[in-house]
Amino acid sequence: MKKNIKRKESLNKVIKQINTLLDKHKLVEDLVDKQDMPKQILIKNLVHKQNLSNLKKLLNDLHPADIADILESIPIDTRRIVWDLVKPDVDGDILVEVSDVVRQTLMSDMDSTELLAAAEQLDTDEIADIASDLPEEVLRDLLENLDIQNRKRLQSALSYPEGTVGALMDFDVLTIREDVSLEVVLNYLRKVQKLPDHTDKLFVVDRNSSIMGVLPLERIIVSQPETTVKNIMAMDAVLFKPEDMANEASNAFERYDLVTAPVVDAKNKLVGRLTVDAVMDHIREEAESEKLSMAGLREEEDMFSSIWKSVKNRWAWLAINLITAFIASRVIGVFEGSIEKVVALAALMPIVAGIGGNSGNQTTTMIVRALALGQVSFSNLRLLLYKEVSVAILNGVLWGSVLGFFAYLLYGNEKLGYVMTAAMILNLILSAIMGVIIPLLMNRFGKDPAVGSSVLITAMTDSGGFFIFLGLATLVLI
Amino acid sequence: MKKNIKRKESLNKVIKQINTLLDKHKLVEDLVDKQDMPKQILIKNLVHKQNLSNLKKLLNDLHPADIADILESIPIDTRRIVWDLVKPDVDGDILVEVSDVVRQTLMSDMDSTELLAAAEQLDTDEIADIASDLPEEVLRDLLENLDIQNRKRLQSALSYPEGTVGALMDFDVLTIREDVSLEVVLNYLRKVQKLPDHTDKLFVVDRNSSIMGVLPLERIIVSQPETTVKNIMAMDAVLFKPEDMANEASNAFERYDLVTAPVVDAKNKLVGRLTVDAVMDHIREEAESEKLSMAGLREEEDMFSSIWKSVKNRWAWLAINLITAFIASRVIGVFEGSIEKVVALAALMPIVAGIGGNSGNQTTTMIVRALALGQVSFSNLRLLLYKEVSVAILNGVLWGSVLGFFAYLLYGNEKLGYVMTAAMILNLILSAIMGVIIPLLMNRFGKDPAVGSSVLITAMTDSGGFFIFLGLATLVLI
Repeated sequence: MKKNIKRKESLNKVIKQINTLLDKHKLVEDLVDKQDMPKQILIKNLVHKQNLSNLKKLLNDLHPADIADILESIPIDTRRIVWDLVKPDVDGDILVEVSDVVRQTLMSDMDSTELLAAAEQLDTDEIADIASDLPEEVLRDLLENLDIQNRKRLQSALSYPEGTVGALMDFDVLTIREDVSLEVVLNYLRKVQKLPDHTDKLFVVDRNSSIMGVLPLERIIVSQPETTVKNIMAMDAVLFKPEDMANEASNAFERYDLVTAPVVDAKNKLVGRLTVDAVMDHIREEAESEKLSMAGLREEEDMFSSIWKSVKNRWAWLAINLITAFIASRVIGVFEGSIEKVVALAALMPIVAGIGGNSGNQTTTMIVRALALGQVSFSNLRLLLYKEVSVAILNGVLWGSVLGFFAYLLYGNEKLGYVMTAAMILNLILSAIMGVIIPLLMNRFGKDPAVGSSVLITAMTDSGGFFIFLGLATLVLI
Repeated sequence: MKKNIKRKESLNKVIKQINTLLDKHKLVEDLVDKQDMPKQILIKNLVHKQNLSNLKKLLNDLHPADIADILESIPIDTRRIVWDLVKPDVDGDILVEVSDVVRQTLMSDMDSTELLAAAEQLDTDEIADIASDLPEEVLRDLLENLDIQNRKRLQSALSYPEGTVGALMDFDVLTIREDVSLEVVLNYLRKVQKLPDHTDKLFVVDRNSSIMGVLPLERIIVSQPETTVKNIMAMDAVLFKPEDMANEASNAFERYDLVTAPVVDAKNKLVGRLTVDAVMDHIREEAESEKLSMAGLREEEDMFSSIWKSVKNRWAWLAINLITAFIASRVIGVFEGSIEKVVALAALMPIVAGIGGNSGNQTTTMIVRALALGQVSFSNLRLLLYKEVSVAILNGVLWGSVLGFFAYLLYGNEKLGYVMTAAMILNLILSAIMGVIIPLLMNRFGKDPAVGSSVLITAMTDSGGFFIFLGLATLVLI
């Protein structure tokens, strides 16, 4: 029936219903908290219980990923209420889906037995994802309860650092031999019944588990049953090694439109597989954490985190900016004599510094992107510098003249106008050179240029802008 | 054979070889350009031709996506050389893969016949992707050459704005009826032979093309051939409408780990399908364009774009920043009298303004993220403001005291120290309030809060910071 096909709107409706029920629930709790009348207790007993049972029903019809989403979007106290209502048999799936901060708040409400029960519902690669949040004794019990193969897998998954293919891969590999017929393969699959999620191909291995090729499901379907695997398997699959960088793997998934890919060790032995959903999660997480770290936030902060946690999360960035601002302030300090004589300098200097910072950050953004696309090499470094400096000079002449003219109009001092224009041009040139060089140097020294460049550029263009403007003014005007 | 399995390293090696050949090629061309000796002409004839034929061979062994990548990473003149060497029968695929800027440079070298030939290799949804770059007469010829069904599809694909499911979907749908047996389905698929890319399920429709359910390939494989489709099809598939937002669709793909999903119209009629590779491209492009627009760059700029194009691309942002900087400068102008008396104020004021900007941007980044996660509602706005203001006060007391103490040490003026501390606390509170309110307001008025918030916040914290610091100083010190 048509109406059985699930539409997204219906999900949003359910989420709204849940939020309404939660609001009602809190309302009742607040009432009871505020006034201790028997009538309120009655309301609590009747309405409250009905609310909770409605909530429970709604929640348990949802996909674990949707429950995870709801848990992310509500404050800590309400989160506890919802978490208690969720059926224990999806606890594990939800813990895998939520973010690290939310997982920690949820786990803090669970005892070891509950945690162990939740973790035992999971695949080895999923256990590895949440392992760092599990108490040591739970992880130990878990390892003891696993069979040898899975224990080995879990240990290997835990051994690969975040950001590698090894940390993203799972172990749901279906392998076949190359010398059997499709009929045999089909019989095998009918015995297995449920193929692992995202299975678009089977992995063909020899008796040492070395990969020989891959057999897309499509070929199984469109070929005659008597065909031998060897004759129809593909031998040009994209392979990954566990120690490959996850970013490279996600580029390959995008480039070749992959759904799954085998992961092999140095001896070509199949150790796991990478799926497009793990890759997509990785891309999203990378983009998220880059955005946060560009503003000096670590990803562990959640909107509902405590004030104290937020202060700690943000202080390092503010401290760094404080130091650079302090240095810029000392540059101004050197020229206090000039400012005392021509006080207009104080009002005009932040403009020169500010526009330099904006322009430098534009250049850096371009360079960071070009680095990611592999467009930057030493052979075109000169080309790049030439272009950025030219753009800076053009912008400097354009905006510098506008500003110089305004400065002249405001203060009636022609020379001040020229100083303004010249300082703008020079500071934009400085910002262009720094905007090219800083991300390249950071990249060269293995730092992520997207994250730290902005502070460095701003520090340079602030101090540099003040120095250029006040220095020129001292030479020309004083 | 093991060695037939393609590894990523081998691709990098090929790209290196190609770059070496291109460098050699340019070297020879440069030599010929500089000296008109017959010897050079000889070199040109022999080495040159061999270079080109080697290049051609290497290029034509590559996946179109890899050639696209190489084209992205090289300057415009070299790009032309490579483009001329590529076999015409992959021209279309490459044009779909490259970015808009690169596509325009490539197309500018092609005449109408070549463009038409390239476009005719493509699927309807791919033509729609590049249609905006095609000359009108090519598009008209193309439409005329299509059969009725495909012409309708192209027109419908072109009618959906960017950012909708309709603009992302393709038309490679394999449909079956619910009352047939798997044996019939298998016979049909064997006749089709090549299933569309990413096919993980067939779409079950009635005679009006209304969707009845989906049949995962997996179920075809593990079920007995005599089973009827109706009995094993899934009826809880996630469906999209062409006018749904692409962002919502990509969330659903991540959440439910989808590979493909049917797209239906208001009457439940199947109009196309969405695949995980289109969704992944969309996620990546969104992240890219957000990063660029945060720095005031439009995505059309490419590292090898002309200087003039770059100036135009960046000027609007600089103009906006210039205006806000000018306003801040006028705020300082009001207090020139105070600065003349206590010149230390000029050196200290940028610190107060700068830290306010940083702190405000941290708050905004948190709020933008919370908005994306659906964590912000009117019921928790007070909670949010309370938290951010508390964090600001703590940070203000901490860093304001440090700075106040330094100001006292530097200038030996105790009152100046107090003014510094008080101004820091007040400006951080202002930045927290603005950091919460500005993105919420932008969101309310349908603007992307990630893009414009930063300029607005900085404008507020600069002007506000100068006003608070200089105003307090005038009250206390003058």
